Amino acid sequence: TYESLQQMYWEDTEYFGNYGNLKIHHEMLSDRPRTLAYQSAIKNNAQQLRGKRVIDVGSGTGILSLMCAKYGLPSQIYAVEASDIVEHTKTIVEKNNLGEIIQVVHGYAEELKLEERVDLIISEWMGTLLLFEMMIESVILTRDNLLKEKGTLWPSSANLFLVPCSAHAQYSQKMEFWDSQFGFDFSPLKPVAQQEFLHKPVHNHEMKPEDCLSSPVSVVFIDMKTVTVAELEHYMHHFSFQIQKDQVMHGFASWFQVTFDPLGHNNDVVILNTGPWHELTHWKQNLFLLDEPINIKEGEIISGSFELYRHEEWRRHLRVLLKFKKVPNEMKENWETGTET
Amino acid sequence: TYESLQQMYWEDTEYFGNYGNLKIHHEMLSDRPRTLAYQSAIKNNAQQLRGKRVIDVGSGTGILSLMCAKYGLPSQIYAVEASDIVEHTKTIVEKNNLGEIIQVVHGYAEELKLEERVDLIISEWMGTLLLFEMMIESVILTRDNLLKEKGTLWPSSANLFLVPCSAHAQYSQKMEFWDSQFGFDFSPLKPVAQQEFLHKPVHNHEMKPEDCLSSPVSVVFIDMKTVTVAELEHYMHHFSFQIQKDQVMHGFASWFQVTFDPLGHNNDVVILNTGPWHELTHWKQNLFLLDEPINIKEGEIISGSFELYRHEEWRRHLRVLLKFKKVPNEMKENWETGTET
Ligand SMILES: [Ca+2]
Ligand SMILES: [Ca+2]
Repeated sequence: TYESLQQMYWEDTEYFGNYGNLKIHHEMLSDRPRTLAYQSAIKNNAQQLRGKRVIDVGSGTGILSLMCAKYGLPSQIYAVEASDIVEHTKTIVEKNNLGEIIQVVHGYAEELKLEERVDLIISEWMGTLLLFEMMIESVILTRDNLLKEKGTLWPSSANLFLVPCSAHAQYSQKMEFWDSQFGFDFSPLKPVAQQEFLHKPVHNHEMKPEDCLSSPVSVVFIDMKTVTVAELEHYMHHFSFQIQKDQVMHGFASWFQVTFDPLGHNNDVVILNTGPWHELTHWKQNLFLLDEPINIKEGEIISGSFELYRHEEWRRHLRVLLKFKKVPNEMKENWETGTET
Repeated sequence: TYESLQQMYWEDTEYFGNYGNLKIHHEMLSDRPRTLAYQSAIKNNAQQLRGKRVIDVGSGTGILSLMCAKYGLPSQIYAVEASDIVEHTKTIVEKNNLGEIIQVVHGYAEELKLEERVDLIISEWMGTLLLFEMMIESVILTRDNLLKEKGTLWPSSANLFLVPCSAHAQYSQKMEFWDSQFGFDFSPLKPVAQQEFLHKPVHNHEMKPEDCLSSPVSVVFIDMKTVTVAELEHYMHHFSFQIQKDQVMHGFASWFQVTFDPLGHNNDVVILNTGPWHELTHWKQNLFLLDEPINIKEGEIISGSFELYRHEEWRRHLRVLLKFKKVPNEMKENWETGTET
């Protein structure tokens, strides 16, 4: 006979979604477009990786180091990870017989000391709105400490994109919802809903290409080879979107793209794009909803500025400031890139 | 021209899923089977509600009070709510011109003082695994304080059901996942996954009827008219499931049902069942996964006990203890309801 004893209980933190560490790694490994982009960069450049020295910043379960070791045969990979998952990473590396190439290090990559600089830094540091969590800071500091002058970073560059968009289902579900429920008028809750649902970004939005009301523009560009920590404090971009269809505009949507430079002249650049024209990743898209939707017409211009601030106090957090105005067709002749009041 | 200024940032608590209060009310109102069950009970008994006195325990946005007032025309409804949403509930009641019937009270229902007892207590107190959050305690205390001896409670009774089940997708996604990822062996993470994913209930499981390996049994029954707060401390049920198909058993699933007694002799009992044969509610189903799936065969018996403890310290939380053994067909003649070691 079979016997089992189970004891189970919830705690608040568990109940409200903090599922501990493995859940995050499970989600990242399950994100095929993400992991396959890194795999493509490694496989495409396998020849050039042979004999090289590599640092994997924030190696997690070790997947990027394992792929580098298996396909690229570098002479040494330092898989550096600060969280406790690292104890298991060591076992995984041994289990896959790659312990001679991969050295797992428990600690902060930016504090790593090596006799010799490395040829490649590989890292998956991207968060919501590209920079959330600010793990990029570790990559930059590790680069300054330990990357050869002619070394490469993967990803090599990053863009954050912005586009005015419609989000009818999202807006209707959160706002028009209160107009009538079971025959009753719940509209007194609309200001509360506005405060709760509209005044912070929707970080897990899934948009469709046709939600874009204009061509997206890049509002942040980061060259991983040259970006400094100081530059992360504030990004600003003036935009001027030419509206392409008569529609209701509910807000702005955002997503990012990163590129992996080739190590050899004949290799292709690998691109990981998390936008609506590509397979959905665990980053999904981000949505900034307006308090009130506005009607816009083909040919009109949405002009303004996008600012991204690193939070003064919570250094892994961000603030976004969006200012814009609509320039109707009849006013375009007088229109100039404006100062906002 | 149109201008707008938006300022947005995340905080940890927001990012990790605590979306404040309105999100919860939005979710509950959006749960049609839930709200329509209450509406049916009210509409079916509209005649008997006329002129009655009603308390709505934990009225939230006020939806149950509004439906009572509109369809039943009671003489007085006390909508009692402890959270801050109550300020808006008052406005909603006025907006719907039901301020003469509904009196919104900010406070704990169990502390309400009335000159006269009421005929009906209506409340939506059910949580995950029926009792999680233990809001039922407020209803019981309010009943003892303020319900007439011949009064009614809605819901009038509740059952928690249990069934051995298969959950192949869930188990495979959380456990077999680690056997191979991108060609690498991640099995050293299996004990971590076991600890993180299997040793607490999955509270948002969506099961299919065919996942049930036996007929479900009721492991908790609550008569709202007579249940005492002391009884909530511990429920125990011995079960003996007759397995109905050759399958892999991954654990036990659980859900609840509540009933609404008719106020008149010719009215029907209204039932809200959150099980897999009914439309999905926001409670979904609960899943208790085993460390290792076991193979079971038609005719075998899964025998054991289910215990539900109110947590000693966190009084709104629960602990579940499941003990069981498999009685193979060839041993059934010697089998008796056993003592577990
Ligand atoms: Ca990340
Ligand atoms: Ca509830």
